[in-house]
Amino acid sequence: MSVDTGTPPVGLFTGQHVLAELEGVDPELLDDEQFLRDTLHNALSLSHATVCQMIAKRFEPQGVTVLALLSESHASLHTYPEDGSIFIDVFTCGHTAQPERAVQLLAEALKPASQNVQTIQRGHDYANLAS
Amino acid sequence: MSVDTGTPPVGLFTGQHVLAELEGVDPELLDDEQFLRDTLHNALSLSHATVCQMIAKRFEPQGVTVLALLSESHASLHTYPEDGSIFIDVFTCGHTAQPERAVQLLAEALKPASQNVQTIQRGHDYANLAS
Repeated sequence: MSVDTGTPPVGLFTGQHVLAELEGVDPELLDDEQFLRDTLHNALSLSHATVCQMIAKRFEPQGVTVLALLSESHASLHTYPEDGSIFIDVFTCGHTAQPERAVQLLAEALKPASQNVQTIQRGHDYANLAS
Repeated sequence: MSVDTGTPPVGLFTGQHVLAELEGVDPELLDDEQFLRDTLHNALSLSHATVCQMIAKRFEPQGVTVLALLSESHASLHTYPEDGSIFIDVFTCGHTAQPERAVQLLAEALKPASQNVQTIQRGHDYANLAS
């Protein structure tokens, strides 16, 4: 016999949003749309996120944005080749995907001189609500 | 003759990321992909953001994600009709677009019972760097 501690709702309104800024990155990598798409897709897949669709735009004279629509929410890259810098965010709902791992893999691919990463808990903390 | 206080870089690595959770929203609105696309596009345009492309996906049995690729970065909606709740984020670089205004307009359209909004300054604070 199990003790019923309460059934969580079907759609858990909870997630982790990882915001990162990397600086001192090779400008050529930051202006290479295909490299950025492939690197983001690979990092998300290895972090157990499911990529449903990706879109990207290269701006003039430089800079790229890539967005990934995930089963678990979304991820984005916004690059500044002229500054050697990039904004990253990976937001995943539920508890399967590992957004911090995705950002770590991106940093390993981009080899920044410095980085700033913060993780924000969003929605409800069901783990604590149940206790 | 003007005093040269230093020229900021061409691509300013700065932006405001507004993260919001709205709860107590009509579930029908949160499962209406076209309404959500139109409402997000309208809110962004009225906030002086430039929408380059939008993508959306309706999940089974319910729930919608909408992503907008902006000249100024991106915006997203992730809905939980079964819970009456929605995650919103609007990230805009530079100083033209008004991401908090976009979130305010979305809240006016969705009429939540409660809301939680936070604004995160990302990158460099050039206004303070120049002083």
